[in-house]
Amino acid sequence: MSLTQLEAARSGQITPEMAFCAEREKLDAELVRAEVAAGRMVIPANKVHLAGRLQPMAIGIAATCKINANIGNSAVTSDADGELDKLHQSLHFGADTVMDLSTGKDIDRIRKAIIDASPVPIGTVPIYQMLEELGGNIEDMKPQHFLDMVEHQAKQGVDYMTVHCGVLMEHLHLTTGRVTGIVSRGGSLIAKWMIAHRKQNPLYEHFDELCEIMRQYDVTWSLGDGLRPGSLADASDAAQFAELEVLGHLVQRSWQIGSQVMVEGPGHIPMDQIEMNIKKQIEICHGAPFYVLGPLVIDIGPGYDHITSAIGAAMAGWYGAAMLCYVTPKEHLGLPDREDVRQGVIAYKIAAHAADVARKRPGARDRDDAISKARFEFDWNEQFRLALDPERAREYHDQTLPQEPFKEAHFCSMCGPKYCSMKITEDIRQMADQAELVSLSTDGSVDLSTASRTN
Amino acid sequence: MSLTQLEAARSGQITPEMAFCAEREKLDAELVRAEVAAGRMVIPANKVHLAGRLQPMAIGIAATCKINANIGNSAVTSDADGELDKLHQSLHFGADTVMDLSTGKDIDRIRKAIIDASPVPIGTVPIYQMLEELGGNIEDMKPQHFLDMVEHQAKQGVDYMTVHCGVLMEHLHLTTGRVTGIVSRGGSLIAKWMIAHRKQNPLYEHFDELCEIMRQYDVTWSLGDGLRPGSLADASDAAQFAELEVLGHLVQRSWQIGSQVMVEGPGHIPMDQIEMNIKKQIEICHGAPFYVLGPLVIDIGPGYDHITSAIGAAMAGWYGAAMLCYVTPKEHLGLPDREDVRQGVIAYKIAAHAADVARKRPGARDRDDAISKARFEFDWNEQFRLALDPERAREYHDQTLPQEPFKEAHFCSMCGPKYCSMKITEDIRQMADQAELVSLSTDGSVDLSTASRTN
Repeated sequence: MSLTQLEAARSGQITPEMAFCAEREKLDAELVRAEVAAGRMVIPANKVHLAGRLQPMAIGIAATCKINANIGNSAVTSDADGELDKLHQSLHFGADTVMDLSTGKDIDRIRKAIIDASPVPIGTVPIYQMLEELGGNIEDMKPQHFLDMVEHQAKQGVDYMTVHCGVLMEHLHLTTGRVTGIVSRGGSLIAKWMIAHRKQNPLYEHFDELCEIMRQYDVTWSLGDGLRPGSLADASDAAQFAELEVLGHLVQRSWQIGSQVMVEGPGHIPMDQIEMNIKKQIEICHGAPFYVLGPLVIDIGPGYDHITSAIGAAMAGWYGAAMLCYVTPKEHLGLPDREDVRQGVIAYKIAAHAADVARKRPGARDRDDAISKARFEFDWNEQFRLALDPERAREYHDQTLPQEPFKEAHFCSMCGPKYCSMKITEDIRQMADQAELVSLSTDGSVDLSTASRTN
Repeated sequence: MSLTQLEAARSGQITPEMAFCAEREKLDAELVRAEVAAGRMVIPANKVHLAGRLQPMAIGIAATCKINANIGNSAVTSDADGELDKLHQSLHFGADTVMDLSTGKDIDRIRKAIIDASPVPIGTVPIYQMLEELGGNIEDMKPQHFLDMVEHQAKQGVDYMTVHCGVLMEHLHLTTGRVTGIVSRGGSLIAKWMIAHRKQNPLYEHFDELCEIMRQYDVTWSLGDGLRPGSLADASDAAQFAELEVLGHLVQRSWQIGSQVMVEGPGHIPMDQIEMNIKKQIEICHGAPFYVLGPLVIDIGPGYDHITSAIGAAMAGWYGAAMLCYVTPKEHLGLPDREDVRQGVIAYKIAAHAADVARKRPGARDRDDAISKARFEFDWNEQFRLALDPERAREYHDQTLPQEPFKEAHFCSMCGPKYCSMKITEDIRQMADQAELVSLSTDGSVDLSTASRTN
């Protein structure tokens, strides 16, 4: 049987996937191997998907910060064509991975179409399809059902799977005082199963067998945070951290068995608690890559939660999260459509890039410096080209100054020609050179301790 | 002559304006007085505007974080009606102050209309109208011109004014190596004047006289940061901090003369430098309220700079900035329209609220807790009511489930009824009560050190 990326890395091999990621990340291939071997980096690359279109993607603190876009239909709305369209939209604007969270009709067909079409890793939450097959009654699930479902999806080529193994019976009483209870869909389903059966979480009990399936296809774990907080009121509470301890143990077991693993995180967290949350997760989970959902830093922004969460996501990425799961403007309100996907992806490209810049990842600021130079030189087409969303930037510019001459104009409609500070700076630079400015600066130098009172 | 808020506070008086702000901020009136007396809080309330519609607003670290919306026409686009509409839009979505940055036609008429209509403090940048009157040639400005213009606008009732007194001749040579030069419109105009005349900044030279005008009407200084960085490449450079030192001195002079003062800040700053920038400003400017523009944390987001900057603004507010100047999606591209104003204001309400929550200002989280409770109870109408933008939240919800029954539904189209985690949590709570959950938790408790391998 072939090795997982983790096993290969440990045995000293630089796989073609590691070499590809090293090239893409501008990192040394040996560094990539060492990070994968240490578990600090994952390359979610199901062998089936790898035989198809997949271009491997490295997720870990040594690589650039990644973003995931969630797509997938719900029972209420959307279909396969709509979801493929969202996949293309996600990729067009730069999603690094895509999760298919379909819970409606045609789950298998939609997933297959997405995997076939996708060059980026595809993630799923297998319990969703499980519930569909059970006709909506999670209580009817047998552990073997679930193992079969994971194997079924692994065979289809899913690169990483969110499984809620860390929600334990002994944690449930910690959630009863919460304002928003259990907000993870998978987490709440597992909790319901446990209470119905008065039995421990079967995904926890069968963790090792699940690892064996993961290992066979090299599916990467995304250990779900079933008890993540769904409101500021519930942030950083006992339930959240009790589960995190379990996830830390599961990371070690996964590594022992040879399957790759990353860990999911909250959710809703005020700004002042984000650093603590990230540091704690990295420590408790032994450096496994942290994959955060937002976090949203306030609760009162429905309709704008791509922004409330991009703030938290940028900070999380700066503090060390490896991947940011996007949130769209429709969060808490409805299923995202293609424009929501665009808004979500761009908000998260912003957050991830801000994190790369703040962490001073090599070359992170090059594109910023290039666009700033183009801005100063009034090279509008180059500004559009370097923008995260060139079409939108051009569209906004052209709303007021659509005519071709204005693509060369040394101003835009914000200030107009007379008030453009960059135009004025150009004038200044023609009026005096550096040497002259230096001489002027030493001429009549001012005593700052008292602003002079002249008339 | 009547006293400024600063002078009154120092003399131990709690003015009606302080009392009003204390009530609004849920602060002790004596605390407000003490903060105003110390210069850590300003209440920009021109006596003329106060005789009109103004409802005084406190800006300072002890108060909630404020946001400003910039409106105003440019030579290229918009008119008085359009600007009044933007004022209403700003107020509707919660702007705490509004700056009229008009640079096109009818400046006086637009400003008067805005002041007459506005219950919030209005700010201006007097050099813009100055330049209009000079026909576009700043070199023709005489110092008295400028003093007259400030007095003219003070008489109209402007509550605070951005004046670029801190850009000195000896700083200009520090900007020549910059990627984006001088990006403040006022700063670049003053620099041009200085180079044309080979003379020191006249607004610096006449600072005390300007203070006297400010004091007479109780106009608050907003000391402009003419040399703020306009790109990540120029952030935290020698030019920026050289000017900041001057602003610190001007704060002290303003206080000596009795005029209220706040200080403007950058601009474009990577996340890892924001805390240092805020701390440094507060220290160098002796605690005068800091009024920041963003900062944008990356440069490559044109079309989305309300988001790139809301990230920086939220962090700045958390670290201690007192007011956040909004940025709209049109930044760097064109003049904002009414939808841009809405997007900018909401993005900044998010940032300011996130800062209030993170700083643990009293009661800051109440509305979040209330919306989370409504969310858990599926009280959709209450969620919309508590949202920062109720109309948009409702509109997004209704895009997929517009019918009236769904306003009572225990799900939305994001997950549908079967997958709603909050619905499932409801079920769970009916299946077992707290006492039973506690007993279950101690029943078959699991040894976390080894996840059991059961079959």
